[in-house]
Amino acid sequence: SAYRVNVTKAGDSGDTEVQALSLVLSKVGEQAFRMEEFRTELDKRLNIIEKRLESESLKLVEIERCKKEISEVRDQVWQQGKKLSQASETGSKLVPMSSQDSEDIVLTADNGIKFVSMKRVPAFQKYILSQETVEYLKKPTFDNWHWEPNEMLSLLEHMYHELDLLQEFNMNPVTLKRWLLCIQANYRNNPFHNFRHCFCVSQMMYGMIHLCGLDSLLPKEDLGILITAAICHDLDHPGYNNTYQINARTELAIRYNDISPLENHHCAVAFQILNNPETNIFANVDKEAFQRIRKGMTMLILATDMARHAEILENFKKRTEEGFDFSKKDHLDTTEFIGLPVAFMYHSYSAFSQLKMVLIKCCDISNEVRPMEVSEPWVDCLLEEYFNQSDREKIEGLPVAPFMDREKVTKPTAQIGFIRFVLIPMFEAVAKVRLRYGEVIIILVPCM
Amino acid sequence: SAYRVNVTKAGDSGDTEVQALSLVLSKVGEQAFRMEEFRTELDKRLNIIEKRLESESLKLVEIERCKKEISEVRDQVWQQGKKLSQASETGSKLVPMSSQDSEDIVLTADNGIKFVSMKRVPAFQKYILSQETVEYLKKPTFDNWHWEPNEMLSLLEHMYHELDLLQEFNMNPVTLKRWLLCIQANYRNNPFHNFRHCFCVSQMMYGMIHLCGLDSLLPKEDLGILITAAICHDLDHPGYNNTYQINARTELAIRYNDISPLENHHCAVAFQILNNPETNIFANVDKEAFQRIRKGMTMLILATDMARHAEILENFKKRTEEGFDFSKKDHLDTTEFIGLPVAFMYHSYSAFSQLKMVLIKCCDISNEVRPMEVSEPWVDCLLEEYFNQSDREKIEGLPVAPFMDREKVTKPTAQIGFIRFVLIPMFEAVAKVRLRYGEVIIILVPCM
Repeated sequence: SAYRVNVTKAGDSGDTEVQALSLVLSKVGEQAFRMEEFRTELDKRLNIIEKRLESESLKLVEIERCKKEISEVRDQVWQQGKKLSQASETGSKLVPMSSQDSEDIVLTADNGIKFVSMKRVPAFQKYILSQETVEYLKKPTFDNWHWEPNEMLSLLEHMYHELDLLQEFNMNPVTLKRWLLCIQANYRNNPFHNFRHCFCVSQMMYGMIHLCGLDSLLPKEDLGILITAAICHDLDHPGYNNTYQINARTELAIRYNDISPLENHHCAVAFQILNNPETNIFANVDKEAFQRIRKGMTMLILATDMARHAEILENFKKRTEEGFDFSKKDHLDTTEFIGLPVAFMYHSYSAFSQLKMVLIKCCDISNEVRPMEVSEPWVDCLLEEYFNQSDREKIEGLPVAPFMDREKVTKPTAQIGFIRFVLIPMFEAVAKVRLRYGEVIIILVPCM
Repeated sequence: SAYRVNVTKAGDSGDTEVQALSLVLSKVGEQAFRMEEFRTELDKRLNIIEKRLESESLKLVEIERCKKEISEVRDQVWQQGKKLSQASETGSKLVPMSSQDSEDIVLTADNGIKFVSMKRVPAFQKYILSQETVEYLKKPTFDNWHWEPNEMLSLLEHMYHELDLLQEFNMNPVTLKRWLLCIQANYRNNPFHNFRHCFCVSQMMYGMIHLCGLDSLLPKEDLGILITAAICHDLDHPGYNNTYQINARTELAIRYNDISPLENHHCAVAFQILNNPETNIFANVDKEAFQRIRKGMTMLILATDMARHAEILENFKKRTEEGFDFSKKDHLDTTEFIGLPVAFMYHSYSAFSQLKMVLIKCCDISNEVRPMEVSEPWVDCLLEEYFNQSDREKIEGLPVAPFMDREKVTKPTAQIGFIRFVLIPMFEAVAKVRLRYGEVIIILVPCM
């Protein structure tokens, strides 16, 4: 009706034209009307379809819920399987340490951190370490397999005493004991990333400190940071690496936005433990020192993420090739990035910080510089943990790294590549470092 | 052309009538042509819907498979549980999941995340937004104070529809509603860092997308990442900044080892929400796309830490001064750092990623580019939050930043420094960007 046209007068000659015109017009009008019909009909159809779609799409929620349920049930299966194997192979593992005198030594906090009860001052026997043991402990050849958990605790305790760290940090010796027990309780019983690995890495750090004479070169605060970071560097390791965490979208990966989830967690657990006054070995240092210790330990623990290996090593090599003087530092290293943006944390390290990062990395992978009879069993442990992961990845349909796949890996091939491409280049880089001490130039000689 | 009319001869007297007639006719033809357009458009819509329906129907197969798998795995659990209870005294831990049958719409999960119940499909009214509102929404002059929470939800919802993101991500419209409600529930009622701030930043992003014509320059996936990151960028903000978190050694600071604790938390909460199928707006994208979205959003949310402001802006300026061609990207930006070490994440951004980071930073602090009557109340909100923090810091004996201290700060001084040294330099840097689009060079014109 909007298009109605009134033709009032028509000329004679135009008669036929107007007739034709009105014919066309009526057709157009008809067409427009049909369009209107078409529109209504389509609209109706569309509405129906859209409604259907909306109800269809609710199915997806159903599917996703199923999937979530599957992965949850799988996790239960896995947990059960683990409990089963633990129950059958070894005794109860709920209380890992010195269980002879512990009814309530270990408590688990809300955040999952295991704490040592305050009620009893836990006292693992302070072993009388023989002079021989004390000297042996300083050597990279030290055989970690001869020592039981309580003995390892005593050996770690000894390191703090021997390096004079109790005096340096005004440390309560009972707190040190409690802290060590708490550390031990927060390592899990993984085939590889367990308390014995923690001990090995820390012992190698202690060995390198003595071998390279770092105990006279570095401020005691730095020695404390190096040793403590080594002890804490794999706390609460779940036995599955970052790749698994990220691919399986675990709680840890989501919490840390896929950024070094494990290392961030190890470090966070370390400071959750230190946040408890009963297990804070640094409770008596001043605020600034605590900040330096926190920054230093964080830097070192985060440096153990092997995904950053190339970056850290290359930057370090550049510095050493520039002939940088590692003695010029004056604590700049630990205070340097307080308040600086995240990005600077990773690139504005002092040469000295870089050295410390490479040192903890050396210790972390140092099994292969130990005597064959010490190092070889570790390969089996590592492969067990790897196979454990790859088996799970296969079940869960996640990508499997070839070096973890029991179908593809052999002990020798695993070792050769690692030693040639990772271990040797890093130890060689450290061997080029020159440290000035008074008038003397000291060359770091790592244990190879 | 079916309705074309040829008037060959017209009588003298009929001249004006015929002219009027042909005028009307041409209008009718035009109308018919528009009808044709309408028909084509409808056809397009129908095709899309039909395609979607087709893919939807495939889901039935998947559901069946999932159900089968669940029953298999359940069987395993049962078998193992039996073995376990035989082997040890440990009680059954097979607590069925998803037991929340609550009637409430908002549920709080163990990790503190608030979820919107699945039982009720929450339906905030889909407002009929007037054409005027819809156009106004695209402008940086948009007045955020006129809208109540439900209206803001609808406006945000509208952005996803208008940018065609539902089609791009094959997004369920009901999930989008639920997700938005869940987002809102996870903003706290802080004076400044609240849901309205979230809305403002997102609206400015939406405004800049339209103002700069980014909607035709960028892939839709990137638009989705930009808008979604803006919406998530301050999730669960506690109202006390990073400095407070770090100085007070809060749980967040310990969890994140003092590295952008708040921004890491905002991002983690965002993906905890997206990890729930019911609120995962990206549930229907493939794995690779989800990874790109995750990386992209993480990068953008972490970029909002103002401690990184100088670093991000300087790197960006270097790139623009090099005359880098921002159009050369091909998604390199979002896939580039998958699997790369953390440190590279912060320094190997593509120019395009850098641009996106600066864009979200601009939006985050864009209150002062809005009309005075919009921006001014925000200053009061910010100062209220600052004073709140500084009061607490004084009570707790923590250091107080002068710009937060009610004894030292005034509204004008606070604003002048910020606008001169932070806001203007950043918007100027963006204004220098050249984007190539086909043969045309497009200059970004931020809203100043």
